[in-house]
Amino acid sequence: MTTWSDKILQLLRRMNNFYLPDSSRTTCFRFELGGEQVGWVPSNVASILSKFPEIFSPPRCGAITLRESFDSYEKRSEAVDDVLQSIRREGCLTVLKGWRDEKYDVMPRFCDTPLMCMERSATSLFGVKRYGVHINGYCRDENGELRMWLGRRSKTKQTYPGKLDNLAAGGLAAGISVKDTLIKECEEEACIPADIAETAHPVSTVSYTYEDKEGVFPESQFVFDLELPREFKPRIGDGEVQDFYLYSMDEVKEVLVSDDFKPNCAMVVLDFLIRHSYIQPDTGVCLKESALWPQH
Amino acid sequence: MTTWSDKILQLLRRMNNFYLPDSSRTTCFRFELGGEQVGWVPSNVASILSKFPEIFSPPRCGAITLRESFDSYEKRSEAVDDVLQSIRREGCLTVLKGWRDEKYDVMPRFCDTPLMCMERSATSLFGVKRYGVHINGYCRDENGELRMWLGRRSKTKQTYPGKLDNLAAGGLAAGISVKDTLIKECEEEACIPADIAETAHPVSTVSYTYEDKEGVFPESQFVFDLELPREFKPRIGDGEVQDFYLYSMDEVKEVLVSDDFKPNCAMVVLDFLIRHSYIQPDTGVCLKESALWPQH
Repeated sequence: MTTWSDKILQLLRRMNNFYLPDSSRTTCFRFELGGEQVGWVPSNVASILSKFPEIFSPPRCGAITLRESFDSYEKRSEAVDDVLQSIRREGCLTVLKGWRDEKYDVMPRFCDTPLMCMERSATSLFGVKRYGVHINGYCRDENGELRMWLGRRSKTKQTYPGKLDNLAAGGLAAGISVKDTLIKECEEEACIPADIAETAHPVSTVSYTYEDKEGVFPESQFVFDLELPREFKPRIGDGEVQDFYLYSMDEVKEVLVSDDFKPNCAMVVLDFLIRHSYIQPDTGVCLKESALWPQH
Repeated sequence: MTTWSDKILQLLRRMNNFYLPDSSRTTCFRFELGGEQVGWVPSNVASILSKFPEIFSPPRCGAITLRESFDSYEKRSEAVDDVLQSIRREGCLTVLKGWRDEKYDVMPRFCDTPLMCMERSATSLFGVKRYGVHINGYCRDENGELRMWLGRRSKTKQTYPGKLDNLAAGGLAAGISVKDTLIKECEEEACIPADIAETAHPVSTVSYTYEDKEGVFPESQFVFDLELPREFKPRIGDGEVQDFYLYSMDEVKEVLVSDDFKPNCAMVVLDFLIRHSYIQPDTGVCLKESALWPQH
């Protein structure tokens, strides 16, 4: 019988599978800019990039980089964008069918100055780290028990349509701050006004690297907790969410291990369960805040 | 000028240095029991173990294990203990001079049944994972601002004498639960009665692997937050702590990057700063809870 913990472990292994023994990591090339790693290039992508030798250097010491003449943010961004548009027209990499016309910054670490920007849908071809903002929305009922707001993604979303999501979340686009992304996503997705969204507290980060046939996905989500007034109800804004639910923590635990949850949102919720003491080191999950140490 | 963040990064790299490119990891052997990895054996230790071929198999496929005849918790524990006592008598591995007569359980994951136990001071020779319990003690002043209790370790402690520590902390010895360890350490180190200690909330884990000349140290700390009544004062109990201080969060931030802090306790405090929103994704550290989004 697969326990709750077993299913959580399956979720975590799946979402960090780039670091499992049989991943593609040993066959990937490092993507480097300015001598520092900024991504991972799967071997099939490296083959395609070799058709653009005026832009990409051939692999050397396990790394692929841009030609030295591309020595600025703008030059690198434009050169790579031209290549990606060309590959997109050929149609050989299906992930580019999800072209978003959104740029993501590329840098070694979050605090570094971006070295270039790249079309969002192409970032997995270069294993470029993607940052996002996720907001845990919750309130306390009349007994003081927490209830968590979850959203169900629209059926028209490009990824994980119809799956459960955090109250609001979004990727960190080039040039936009974490704060502004938080305010924007809260307003657009759930009609949460800025004066309420600004009370969200930064509490955690959730990081992982997964791979699938579309490439390598190193991601790091900035997690915020937002306690909402009990009478507040999120409303559908831009239609990215089709519905909102207010779940008890028991219900949250159940859906967490169903296939109904967008996986990275599930991990953000798991982190919430840990930080809010719903998970006990000795015993696993205990959902009654009044019984921190269950008898067994 | 080295910023606060730079110093924090130095702390983190030092405490997770086993995963840096130039670590000893590629020259270590996996320590395996029952076909599963339970540790890392540095090459100098592997050489010493080769003098006990009736207990340890020679390295095969990069792994060292016990002879098959040692097929129970007791048999494995006794066999390895005999070897360690022998090595201790010879005096060639200095870490064993810190013999504690405390046993630590050895298993692949925390939830697995222990396969053997091992003398605490020897665990780094086998890179066996060590678990501990750390308690962040804090209270709110009359303005609602958090203040954190820190302890200064006794000059007679075997490791990091005289350094700053969390309110209470201790290693997880074989056969003792996380809860019992928490209650025990709170009582012994800080005279916190059980009825108060039991209100500590499990909130996080902090995991890392460092190495030094004494071996490999994979560690995972179960972290608890304990909000104390404002009038409560921890008192010296068993003498492992020589003094307690109540610091403002500004003061906590400063000492965190001094050499005055036991490093793993510093990381537990860093995790506290993140979870309690003292660290902003966009700007770094902001210590005023009322100004979540500082103007700059």
